[in-house]
Amino acid sequence: MEEKNNTIVIDGKAIAQQIKDEIKKEVSDIIDSGKRPPHLVAVIVGEDGASLSYVASKEKQSKEVGFTSSVYRFPNTIKEEDLINTIDFLNQDDEVDGFIVQLPLPKHINEQRIIERIDPKKDVDGFHPSNGGRMMYNMPAFIPATPMGITSMLKRSNIETVGKHCVVLGRSNIVGTPLSVLMSRNNSDTNCTVTLCHSKTQNLKEICLSADILIVAIGKPEFVKEDMVKNGAVVIDVGIHRIEDKTKEKGYRIVGDVAFEEVKNKCSYISPVPGGVGMLTVVSLLQNTLKAYKKEVYQ
Amino acid sequence: MEEKNNTIVIDGKAIAQQIKDEIKKEVSDIIDSGKRPPHLVAVIVGEDGASLSYVASKEKQSKEVGFTSSVYRFPNTIKEEDLINTIDFLNQDDEVDGFIVQLPLPKHINEQRIIERIDPKKDVDGFHPSNGGRMMYNMPAFIPATPMGITSMLKRSNIETVGKHCVVLGRSNIVGTPLSVLMSRNNSDTNCTVTLCHSKTQNLKEICLSADILIVAIGKPEFVKEDMVKNGAVVIDVGIHRIEDKTKEKGYRIVGDVAFEEVKNKCSYISPVPGGVGMLTVVSLLQNTLKAYKKEVYQ
Repeated sequence: MEEKNNTIVIDGKAIAQQIKDEIKKEVSDIIDSGKRPPHLVAVIVGEDGASLSYVASKEKQSKEVGFTSSVYRFPNTIKEEDLINTIDFLNQDDEVDGFIVQLPLPKHINEQRIIERIDPKKDVDGFHPSNGGRMMYNMPAFIPATPMGITSMLKRSNIETVGKHCVVLGRSNIVGTPLSVLMSRNNSDTNCTVTLCHSKTQNLKEICLSADILIVAIGKPEFVKEDMVKNGAVVIDVGIHRIEDKTKEKGYRIVGDVAFEEVKNKCSYISPVPGGVGMLTVVSLLQNTLKAYKKEVYQ
Repeated sequence: MEEKNNTIVIDGKAIAQQIKDEIKKEVSDIIDSGKRPPHLVAVIVGEDGASLSYVASKEKQSKEVGFTSSVYRFPNTIKEEDLINTIDFLNQDDEVDGFIVQLPLPKHINEQRIIERIDPKKDVDGFHPSNGGRMMYNMPAFIPATPMGITSMLKRSNIETVGKHCVVLGRSNIVGTPLSVLMSRNNSDTNCTVTLCHSKTQNLKEICLSADILIVAIGKPEFVKEDMVKNGAVVIDVGIHRIEDKTKEKGYRIVGDVAFEEVKNKCSYISPVPGGVGMLTVVSLLQNTLKAYKKEVYQ
């Protein structure tokens, strides 16, 4: 962590590396004990550039920690029934601990049907409603990667959460909604009073100013300004945007949902973009896969 | 609804009757069209007085609206496997649209295993994590009875919810937690900014004072006092307690989590105890059963 005027800029990369080192050590011990390593499978349909790059990153990082990693590739034209058959096969395969189906899927495929076809026991993305509900009821569950990464980030930065007011901006299914639930659970590393804000929220500024921990996943570049943040607050930025900037060689710069430069001096902690939350997502997937291997979530 | 000093005391009984009349009409039309009526089954284990009385009320109200109602009764000594077999049988039976297993169960039975064994398609109590997760992701779902009853109460009282600040006190699995999620969903009859408070919450009074809609499910008699409520707020009281009162013939009176007499004059709307939220729970179960019959949640 780097200090600037008493503000700690959270180093997502270092935290990610720390977790990966721990996983790697554990996998190494597993192999030394004569057992097979955890096996993560990614299913990808089509040639979407972002999807290909996510899957490549998952594959690379899986291998880094010693997992077996497989990728099932299908053309955009695959029939829904054939994808369902693949899922049924992976659900049954004892040598596969967890798998993900990279989203989005082509329009002719019912995404929700696919997600709900995955055996919750192998749903290491945590997108199956059964895992969502288990998280909500504070039962063992696979937690979606971004919310999980944020709790790891807070915990490993020794940020106090119990009883704090956590304000979450944005209620998407993959970040804001599950995160708001997770942060309110009765666990030692969460246990916040949580307010979930969204497009219909009135008095947004006032609510943000009451936040001890402000988590922004609203999808608008540099939306949160200095006058929306309480002195000493923790600010976690989930957004990532490419905005035009002719002063840069590439012609753009990467920003988050928070106006970092003006907000950072008011915070006790702030997560930057890039180099913040985004570094933790694949790591969370690896943690879920290790849990699936060890049958820690479902017996 | 009864007016007192401009405060409207919500009449839970009248709302419940209104909904039951609608269900009864629909069931009557179904029968007239030559189809069988919806069929709700309650499974009860043991002789717990409260459980027997809940199940009797469910049976009675089911019959009132024209449903077929069955009760499966088992002794306290039933083996978990035998209960599982019963659930598997009910899951398969095409003549059963929905069923509930009355809680609590005897200690030798793993309650969570029983709940997760119920086919989510027939889980009209909405306690299966899969229905919890679907609700969280704003997909079609069976909503648990008390949260659903509260939304019915707000809607049928024409209380504006969109963009309002809803503060929920208490994060139980059957009320506070699912309710806080439900109230924040992007639907015309919810869509609130929601703050979920619990035992670890700091500045509880201040947060309550910021509520446009205050829903109290904290399990403490008359916990919410006048000085915790904003003028003109809507107050919904989920608690129910019997407290000693020698001035009453029975030696006790029934109160909620809200100090009704002192709070009521500050509110625009308030739900009383008894005669408030409690009147809506069985009705919500009936609504879920009708939805299950019509396959409105799962195809």
